[in-house]
Amino acid sequence: MCTAATYKTKDFYMGRTLDYECSYGEEVTITPRGYTFMMRHGKPYQTKYALIGMAHVAGEYPLYYDAINEKGLGMAGLNFVGNAFYTEPAEGKDNVAQFELIPWILGQCTSVKEARVLLERICITNISFHESMPVSSLHWIIADQDEAITLESVREGIKIYDNPVGVLTNNPPFDRQLAGLNRYMGLSAKQPKNTFGGANELPLQAYSRGMGALGLPGDLSSESRFVRVSFVKMNSLSGDSESESVSQFFHILGSVDQQRGCCEVKEGAYEITIYTSCCNASKGIYYYTTYENHQITAVDMNKEDLNAKKLIRFPLVCGEQIRWQN
Amino acid sequence: MCTAATYKTKDFYMGRTLDYECSYGEEVTITPRGYTFMMRHGKPYQTKYALIGMAHVAGEYPLYYDAINEKGLGMAGLNFVGNAFYTEPAEGKDNVAQFELIPWILGQCTSVKEARVLLERICITNISFHESMPVSSLHWIIADQDEAITLESVREGIKIYDNPVGVLTNNPPFDRQLAGLNRYMGLSAKQPKNTFGGANELPLQAYSRGMGALGLPGDLSSESRFVRVSFVKMNSLSGDSESESVSQFFHILGSVDQQRGCCEVKEGAYEITIYTSCCNASKGIYYYTTYENHQITAVDMNKEDLNAKKLIRFPLVCGEQIRWQN
Amino acid sequence: MCTAATYKTKDFYMGRTLDYECSYGEEVTITPRGYTFMMRHGKPYQTKYALIGMAHVAGEYPLYYDAINEKGLGMAGLNFVGNAFYTEPAEGKDNVAQFELIPWILGQCTSVKEARVLLERICITNISFHESMPVSSLHWIIADQDEAITLESVREGIKIYDNPVGVLTNNPPFDRQLAGLNRYMGLSAKQPKNTFGGANELPLQAYSRGMGALGLPGDLSSESRFVRVSFVKMNSLSGDSESESVSQFFHILGSVDQQRGCCEVKEGAYEITIYTSCCNASKGIYYYTTYENHQITAVDMNKEDLNAKKLIRFPLVCGEQIRWQN
Amino acid sequence: MCTAATYKTKDFYMGRTLDYECSYGEEVTITPRGYTFMMRHGKPYQTKYALIGMAHVAGEYPLYYDAINEKGLGMAGLNFVGNAFYTEPAEGKDNVAQFELIPWILGQCTSVKEARVLLERICITNISFHESMPVSSLHWIIADQDEAITLESVREGIKIYDNPVGVLTNNPPFDRQLAGLNRYMGLSAKQPKNTFGGANELPLQAYSRGMGALGLPGDLSSESRFVRVSFVKMNSLSGDSESESVSQFFHILGSVDQQRGCCEVKEGAYEITIYTSCCNASKGIYYYTTYENHQITAVDMNKEDLNAKKLIRFPLVCGEQIRWQN
Repeated sequence: MCTAATYKTKDFYMGRTLDYECSYGEEVTITPRGYTFMMRHGKPYQTKYALIGMAHVAGEYPLYYDAINEKGLGMAGLNFVGNAFYTEPAEGKDNVAQFELIPWILGQCTSVKEARVLLERICITNISFHESMPVSSLHWIIADQDEAITLESVREGIKIYDNPVGVLTNNPPFDRQLAGLNRYMGLSAKQPKNTFGGANELPLQAYSRGMGALGLPGDLSSESRFVRVSFVKMNSLSGDSESESVSQFFHILGSVDQQRGCCEVKEGAYEITIYTSCCNASKGIYYYTTYENHQITAVDMNKEDLNAKKLIRFPLVCGEQIRWQN
Repeated sequence: MCTAATYKTKDFYMGRTLDYECSYGEEVTITPRGYTFMMRHGKPYQTKYALIGMAHVAGEYPLYYDAINEKGLGMAGLNFVGNAFYTEPAEGKDNVAQFELIPWILGQCTSVKEARVLLERICITNISFHESMPVSSLHWIIADQDEAITLESVREGIKIYDNPVGVLTNNPPFDRQLAGLNRYMGLSAKQPKNTFGGANELPLQAYSRGMGALGLPGDLSSESRFVRVSFVKMNSLSGDSESESVSQFFHILGSVDQQRGCCEVKEGAYEITIYTSCCNASKGIYYYTTYENHQITAVDMNKEDLNAKKLIRFPLVCGEQIRWQN
Repeated sequence: MCTAATYKTKDFYMGRTLDYECSYGEEVTITPRGYTFMMRHGKPYQTKYALIGMAHVAGEYPLYYDAINEKGLGMAGLNFVGNAFYTEPAEGKDNVAQFELIPWILGQCTSVKEARVLLERICITNISFHESMPVSSLHWIIADQDEAITLESVREGIKIYDNPVGVLTNNPPFDRQLAGLNRYMGLSAKQPKNTFGGANELPLQAYSRGMGALGLPGDLSSESRFVRVSFVKMNSLSGDSESESVSQFFHILGSVDQQRGCCEVKEGAYEITIYTSCCNASKGIYYYTTYENHQITAVDMNKEDLNAKKLIRFPLVCGEQIRWQN
Repeated sequence: MCTAATYKTKDFYMGRTLDYECSYGEEVTITPRGYTFMMRHGKPYQTKYALIGMAHVAGEYPLYYDAINEKGLGMAGLNFVGNAFYTEPAEGKDNVAQFELIPWILGQCTSVKEARVLLERICITNISFHESMPVSSLHWIIADQDEAITLESVREGIKIYDNPVGVLTNNPPFDRQLAGLNRYMGLSAKQPKNTFGGANELPLQAYSRGMGALGLPGDLSSESRFVRVSFVKMNSLSGDSESESVSQFFHILGSVDQQRGCCEVKEGAYEITIYTSCCNASKGIYYYTTYENHQITAVDMNKEDLNAKKLIRFPLVCGEQIRWQN
């Protein structure tokens, strides 16, 4: 499935893995300021702020998986199959189709605070981009350097959750994932104390480093990835330079990397981490790796003309870029 | 399989569960002082001390599963299939058949210290009691109020392990079971502290009592029972009266009770806790319950003539003894 | 905290543990037919059906912890601290104080189906029995031989959940507990198959019986008890005689017994299983054990005058009832 | 600590992580054929085969952490603190100091089979390379395309274990690690079947992909890393091209990557994965990444003069090598 996380050093970083059994041909895509989106339920809408993110571009329409805008606000959509529930358009609401949501928010908000206002009157509709495509079942993380929230549209309506851990995976719904962390509250990056025997001391000892986090789940299910990446992210330490921050971020998401062969989707088909991204939301840089390319590749939105008329697209560098020392 | 444990309040207690898919007709059996055992590899041997324990009596021969003697020394044999290894008789050794071992030790030792001396020259032989019976694969716990040891005869020879936890189950070998406890050293009867986020505090909380022992295994495999009953025993608290001590002891072994249906041995056959025993080794009292009788039944060896010529036998009270209040 | 479970052989059984650090002096209490309850929010109410259950009797008022009625309907209240939310009386509702709920339901319903109808118009109010007592925070299991439901009054309102497993513990809310079972769906009473290496076979083997349920939690937290007792109950097998059924039921709840010392509530105070009950709801018999008495004690409501004018009360038999064979 | 693994597609790959809180200035180092090692306990020894691996070079002495030779045999030393036990030189043995072991084996053996012969007469001595350096406590994995073995020198003597999983971490001793895998035999890359309720079906379902491996440990302790990387490696699937094989190998070892902050060694000091290597043992290529450089860097031994007189050394490329697309 997928995992998203935020990270803060001097700058604010946000990124995600996309885990799936096949790719749809995504590209790093910049949507410039003033780009017009035809809306399914209302008047065309023009973005105020430029965006950079990963998108499948259909015609001139960027179907974003995740993006940041030039104001430092980021957003990512993650699979939420079986729990996402979108509705018919509603009177008096901002009716936004599921696939329009990321440019709708990032194109006009500068912060989570502003996004919260917009979300108060939103209705996410169940219209697909094209009749040949199913409606994706997603929920979203929206974050800036000050806070993160989770947005879910479920049978009971729109839910906005504070996201104090800055992490999102997939099922079950976010409130359960967050409550589930309570079961792991005693885990630690420090070695455990010997309390097994209570007042009756037993001569137990730590025979290895890292035993304070025994109990951390290691499988690839969404709930286990949520717990694992939350632990890694919350305990992460790095220098605050760009290089050290980006490096550490890829180590964080590396803890939930999906290796080919370990998660069978159907006979002979396996889910893998197709790409991993890390956005410097403060500076507008999109870093990524792909399953077959461990080198980090980067696109800087500020090197492009953000008032351009057209989408600016960068096909992914996919093959393993090995540096030969001899 | 089986679980044995010790417990100390004012008196010293020791007992075990016998987990199996069928019973062989065991009885609480007292072997009086001066009882003669014909030995397979040497001269007949006369017990110095009287024993009480659970035995299948074949002819006049008590095949003990577990017993204590009148000096406060106890011993229990537990399944050790695939790891127990008995040999041919060896020159210059005390050659003792596996089924002779409990009366051999308890009939002449007053303490673990004395038993250690005897065990220095022991060879446990692979002779069965009767050609129609296979040789049981067992290892043993030997304990008094001061210490407990585990005795194993494996391919590498005789192993005597200090047993600081006073617990024995089955596979794997005892040194591995004890080392395995290290992985659980951070478990506690107290609530966990919130250390998950390291320096970055997350608002996690204990939503239930008892969360300090999260990670304690709950299944019926021998390694999981070892960990679970060790935790329960080490943290146990009770008054030191006979009634409170005995009651607590049955609660300790109750934590590894095997319920019918939860452990399938072969199609339609299930292992259950056939009986649970608790010996007051200081006073010579044998308490027991059976799967179908929750009431504790007791036999006091000191109410019998310990210089009798014959075994004194008490068939088990097996059906549920319900007390009607109206 | 507490655990409740149902069990069905020829008859229908239901019972619970009460886990706490102290007892409030409960008794097995029969409320006869036609007994009048003064209601806090309306007219006095007369029971149609007689009840038997465990109650703290205050004056002539039975504060039931759990009970069954003569029609085979049972109900138990379990701690739900931090999630239970009771309200002010509401217009047009049946306003019932939390402590009135068990006699209100069991006094007039013959089945869960009838209880569902009554619950459609219920409002559970936050009035305490006496100003000196706090309002308990509870949720309830209601069950007959055909089905079980869970009743919760939370901030969002009254919730009625189908309870397909027939088990209730404490926090978190029931829907989460039930959803949490999905993580354990692969556990089994049978031995595991070796699938670790996928197509690349590794020579792994089961070194102990009972390894199919590895992963079952063994601690005393409410969520772990829910999973453990659900597994034990669902896999339970027994003869269908009264004796075998009752015996097996106490083994089921024995799997979540709380041993003194293993769950510290505050410095030096420990939660234990104060009593365990098993009601034959089909025949009106209340069986129980206490922490200090392993023998099963029983009260048969049908041996009493169910048209009596007063409560019929049986103080608990508490000390260890040991049967001496010599 | 460290993790080593093997992987086989068309070629044979072997590599490791080095996890520690600081680096000692290691370099990719080629030892040419005919290079002379002064031995501490005997005559100088000349290598027959050239080696490439990671080493700290002291003077002209390569202290290898891991290496392969030109015949496709590989070897890596991993921390084994508290269990490694080296002795005084022994009469009639090949006395080899711990730090001489890798060139001793790889310099003269073409296969594990040949190494086994050499190891029959080995004695690993407790002499340090220099009085200012402690003796490292290590054990070793030795592997070729046909098999892998683990070499341990412990208190009981030299132990050679078949290593069917082709993985090594640290404590406890290897035989225990391998036996420990049995507890995880039921894990799978496929979704779990619903067996929780036995014959009584409960409506449980997999709410996420990847749930067949629930129970896989996710912490950084050596035993958990052993289980996790074993599962990932055994289930790994990739194309057999060089690029795909190498990429997959780094994904395998990525599953046990140690992130800065998650394993505190002492106040403020954290263990991290300093480097990760992947050797194509069939072709003599050494690939590596460092904590701060996600790009794979490579050195091909066959591009160098393997009959050179001196060590050929390649300082590590350490900073993050980001590829800018604009």
